[in-house]
Parts: sequence; C-alpha cells; structure tokens
Amino acid sequence: MKDGLRPARTLRDERVTLAHGGGGRAMRDLVESVFTAAFEPPGMEDQARLTSAALAEPGARLAFTTDSFVVTPVEFPGGDIGKLAVCGTVNDLAVGGARPLWLSAAFIIEEGCEVALLRRIAATMRAEADRAGVRIVTGDTKVVQRGAADRVYVTTSGVGVIPPGREMAAGNVRPGDVALVNGVLGDHGAAILAARGDLALSTDLQSDCASLDRLIEATLAAAPGLRCARDATRGGIASALNEIAEASALSIELDETALPLRPEVKGMCEILGLDPLYLANEGTLVAFVPEDQADAALAAMRALPEGAGAVAIGRAQAGEPGRVTMRTAFGGRRIVDMLVGEQLPRIC
Amino acid sequence: MKDGLRPARTLRDERVTLAHGGGGRAMRDLVESVFTAAFEPPGMEDQARLTSAALAEPGARLAFTTDSFVVTPVEFPGGDIGKLAVCGTVNDLAVGGARPLWLSAAFIIEEGCEVALLRRIAATMRAEADRAGVRIVTGDTKVVQRGAADRVYVTTSGVGVIPPGREMAAGNVRPGDVALVNGVLGDHGAAILAARGDLALSTDLQSDCASLDRLIEATLAAAPGLRCARDATRGGIASALNEIAEASALSIELDETALPLRPEVKGMCEILGLDPLYLANEGTLVAFVPEDQADAALAAMRALPEGAGAVAIGRAQAGEPGRVTMRTAFGGRRIVDMLVGEQLPRIC
Repeated sequence: MKDGLRPARTLRDERVTLAHGGGGRAMRDLVESVFTAAFEPPGMEDQARLTSAALAEPGARLAFTTDSFVVTPVEFPGGDIGKLAVCGTVNDLAVGGARPLWLSAAFIIEEGCEVALLRRIAATMRAEADRAGVRIVTGDTKVVQRGAADRVYVTTSGVGVIPPGREMAAGNVRPGDVALVNGVLGDHGAAILAARGDLALSTDLQSDCASLDRLIEATLAAAPGLRCARDATRGGIASALNEIAEASALSIELDETALPLRPEVKGMCEILGLDPLYLANEGTLVAFVPEDQADAALAAMRALPEGAGAVAIGRAQAGEPGRVTMRTAFGGRRIVDMLVGEQLPRIC
Repeated sequence: MKDGLRPARTLRDERVTLAHGGGGRAMRDLVESVFTAAFEPPGMEDQARLTSAALAEPGARLAFTTDSFVVTPVEFPGGDIGKLAVCGTVNDLAVGGARPLWLSAAFIIEEGCEVALLRRIAATMRAEADRAGVRIVTGDTKVVQRGAADRVYVTTSGVGVIPPGREMAAGNVRPGDVALVNGVLGDHGAAILAARGDLALSTDLQSDCASLDRLIEATLAAAPGLRCARDATRGGIASALNEIAEASALSIELDETALPLRPEVKGMCEILGLDPLYLANEGTLVAFVPEDQADAALAAMRALPEGAGAVAIGRAQAGEPGRVTMRTAFGGRRIVDMLVGEQLPRIC
C-alpha cells in the first residue's frame, strides 16, 4: 500500500482537525498511524471477514452487544475510556455466557483533541483486548467541530460465541439461590467522582475497570448450575439486582453487613449523600448460583485476582416478585429500589 | 416485566434529561418507549443471542463492521441520521459480499434533545431495517450534557454472513475490468449542503441514502465474476476509486462524459467550487466487473429501482499503479487524487 511508505504528514501538529474526518488522505493518516497501528495490520476493506470453528459448532449461538462510552474525565485512576470500552463490551458478552471473540471500535472525536491522547487510548484498548483474548477487527472515526463532543467518545460492539447448551439468564434464578459478588462495590463511580476534582477529594481510589470473562468461565467450571451473571455498571448493584428480581419474578434480600465496601468509598458516600449500592462498577460481577454450589463458586472466584474479594451478599426468595430489600446492620429491612434518575452523569 | 405495565412517566416533558442516561428507571423508560418499542420486543439481557443456519455452513465467514454517524442536520431531504446509519452499515456488509443479518444501534444523546425526534429516528431505522431484511437486535443509550454533543449521534455495527466461496476484494481487480456505478453521483453531499441553509440554495435535491444489498446480490447473480464493490460515501467516488487503484496496484481511467451527474449538482459544484467526484454518496455502488460481464451486470442493475441509472464510468488498466485519472470532455487527462482534507464536515 502506498500509504504505508509515507509519513503521516497531516498529523504533524498533533491536534485533530476537521480534515481528519473527511474520508480522504488526512483521515487515513489518522486511522493508520493511531488506530490500525494499535489494533490490526492495516487493511483496505471496510469490514472484517472472520472465521471461527466455535461458530460452526451445532447448537452454538452468536452473542452480539454494543455500548457507547462518554466518561469524563477520559483518563482516570485505573483506566481510560478505551479500557472501559473494551472491558464493558467483553463483560456484556461474558455475562451472557459467551466467549468474546471480536470487537469493533468507533470514535467520535472533537476537533482539537490531542493525537497523543488517542494514541494512549488505542494502546490501552489493545492491551486490554490482548488480556481478554479478543481482537479489535474493525473501526471507524468521525470528527466533529469544537463544542460538538467532549474530546472523544468511543462505541464498541462485540461478537462472541455461546457454547452449545449454555443458558445463563436472569429468568433462571430460583428461590434459595445465593447472590455472589467478586469484590468491593462502587470503586469506579467513586474514583471517577474523585478524579473530576470538583470536590477537592484526595483519595487513592482506582476504578475497578476489568474484563470478567476469565472469572465467569472459572465460576462456571466450578459451579455449572450458575443461573445468571450481571456486570453491575451504570445504576450500580441495586439496578442489576432489580432487573434480576423482575426477570425471575422473585425477591432478593441483601445482607448489609456482607456488602464489601472500602472505607474510603463508604466515607465518600456518607459525606456526599450517595448510596454505594447505586455507584457504578466496571469490573463487578453479580452471579446467582444454587445454594449447594455457592462455596465452590466462591472458591473458584477467589483463586483469581479479579475475584479475590468474592463474597455472598444475599439470596433470592419466593414472594414479593421484583422486590429487592436489604437487611440492615441494625436489624431493620429497607427496600432497595431501582434508581430513578442518575447519581452521576457520564460515569461510563 | 413490571415496567411494561407502567406508563413512561419520566418522558412526560418530551425532552431528554441527564437522568435518562443514568442506568435507572428513567433510562429504561426512554429505551423501552422509544427504542425497543421500534426495534425488538423488550428484553432484559444486555446482549442479543442469535442463531443462523447460514453461519454454520462450511466455508461461510462472518462479516463485522461499524460506523458512527454525526450528520448535520439530523433530518434532511431523503432521510435522517437513523436511515443513514442503517443503510451505511448494511452497505458496508454488502460490499464485502456479506448478507446482512443483524445490527446494533448505540445512541449518544444531548441533554434537551426532543424525544419526538428520537422516535422519528427509531421509526426510520426500523423501516429501513425491514426493507433490507436485517434486525436491530441490541443497543445502548448515553446522555451527555448540553453542548457535549449535537442532538444525537448514532453508531451502528453490523454482522452478516459471506457465503462460502464468495471473495470480493479490491485486490481482485484486473486490467480491462469495467467500473460501474448504479446512478447519479453526489446527491447526498449536495442535499446535505443545501439542507444546512447557509447558502440560501433552493433545490429539490434528496440524499441518495439507500440500502444496496439487494442490488449487489442481483449484480452478483448476473455477473458472478464481480471483482469488488464499494459504497462511495465520505470522500466521494474519487476516494473509493483511489483505494481500489491502490489495493489492486492498477490505474483507473474515468470518462468524464460518462459520469452521471444531475444538472443541479453540477451547477451547485460550479458555484461553490466543489468537485462532484469528492461529494459524499450514501447509496452509490461502485463495482468492477470483467469486461465480458459488464453488459449483464448493467442490465441486472437497471432492473432494480436503485440501479435504474447504472452506467459504466471507466476502466482498470495496467501501469501507473494506484493512479486514478479522468479523460475530460475536452480530450485532456487529469489526475483524480485522493482528497486530502474534507470538503464538508459532518456529512455522514
């Protein structure tokens, strides 16, 4: 390809201009020097063409998911918008029982965005994709004028394969099933809040942003009865549990004393009047397993770094379908409703 | 599902607020009443789980593509951002030889955006998806504050199946192959330019925005030697031809007198100093076929409404690899280079 031999002249000034969105040479310079350099060898075709033996297996299903990411700040302790996008899409596939295979990545870039920032984002995406064993195989860039976006937005879509016979769904949860989480709650929301700097909070908090595919496979191997899994992102663990309670027509009771919370997150929530149950997570798995497989599932989760803090936090029950409650530390019981609005805009 | 029985109370004011992006009940109201209502029956899972016999066929490959759309204005003569997104993704799949099956749709919405606009966009997306025989199976919404987007951006990804043995690629073009287009050039770019109203141009121009999957299948049936196809979008037909010339290491010579251009588009370009070869199209197919199949291909294209204006516009030649030239009406010859910057920002 001719372009491979030519330096990326249009990137000299290291700021993205509207010309980089025009479909011509400037755009190709940007795409090739920043994105395809990080993701895949440059190709001329607009679409990836892929084969996988797993897809051809009788009874296998294809899983397909998408998410846009608009987090601010774009870079934060524990990750950046690119890592968030890869983890988020890998996790959306994995919680449905799929083995993630391929990702797409589309960038909406504000005129004036630093090319160096885009390079860092592309590098973290590649690193996280490698970690999760997925390939970023196709992409797109658009540039909008100053003030029509906020630096960069990333939309990732993912394709994976659900092996034959695997059926994880919220509707499968049964009374008596135990709710597990893989570790502390609310770190992503709290880290983003602190990183915004508006609150003059000084913390060492990091986003929990992580791919959960390996953790889910390990849990499934140890607890094949695993009913369903959820990635407790926007809306926090409370929203994930409410969805599961609704889909299964059961109630879920949490034990407040069992909830794993960092003292810093607890403290920040108390000062700001936030509820950690609604704080966003980006590497927090909620899984329901039959009671007799709970110990095996916990042991399997704890054997991995991303599951080291795994604990049981509650249980599904018959009656009051769709309701989530919490047994408080003082022996009371309160309803954990679905969040109506939002606690923090642009958290992911 | 409890929510199915509840009116969408948070949408009373008919403007999107930041609360609609929070992951809680307000977001679900928006998603269910606007998007899942138009696309698919509401589901609780974050990912689509899909089966297709076509995928399991030995030798079949999966095609995967993505595009973000940031066009302004969001609604224009001949379509809107949603139709553009569906057609664009269907076309990206189809030009690679794939039969489009499934789409995802992710929306980045500016606070204050009218819910009625989103409903219209969702409706045109559904209508265009039905026309192209694809299903919109998964999606996402994010809301950003006023001034961090421009009403709404849409990112679609697509999955399709390339039948066994089908191999369309720019690298396959051979000397002597004929370049065909399905109709007039530049309508999308010209229509968007006129719709912006800055130029006080009054025209009846409509975007050519259309799905090309049926046209490509018909062309393939009539001309099985079809080497490659391109959807001449951003950067216009000039950019598409330059990419093909590079990938095939051939030159391409166009015949200016053969280029199908509406007088209005030609006139607008003359007044504004634009080159119609670089104007964006959203339903314009460029296909290369062996010379002895060109007539059959043209006849097949002309039998469909979206190919009614099909003509041959040029030819691939050995020598001068990567160069595109045009034999002008006056007998001269000029180079048709790849666009460097952009003619019109946010054209798609």
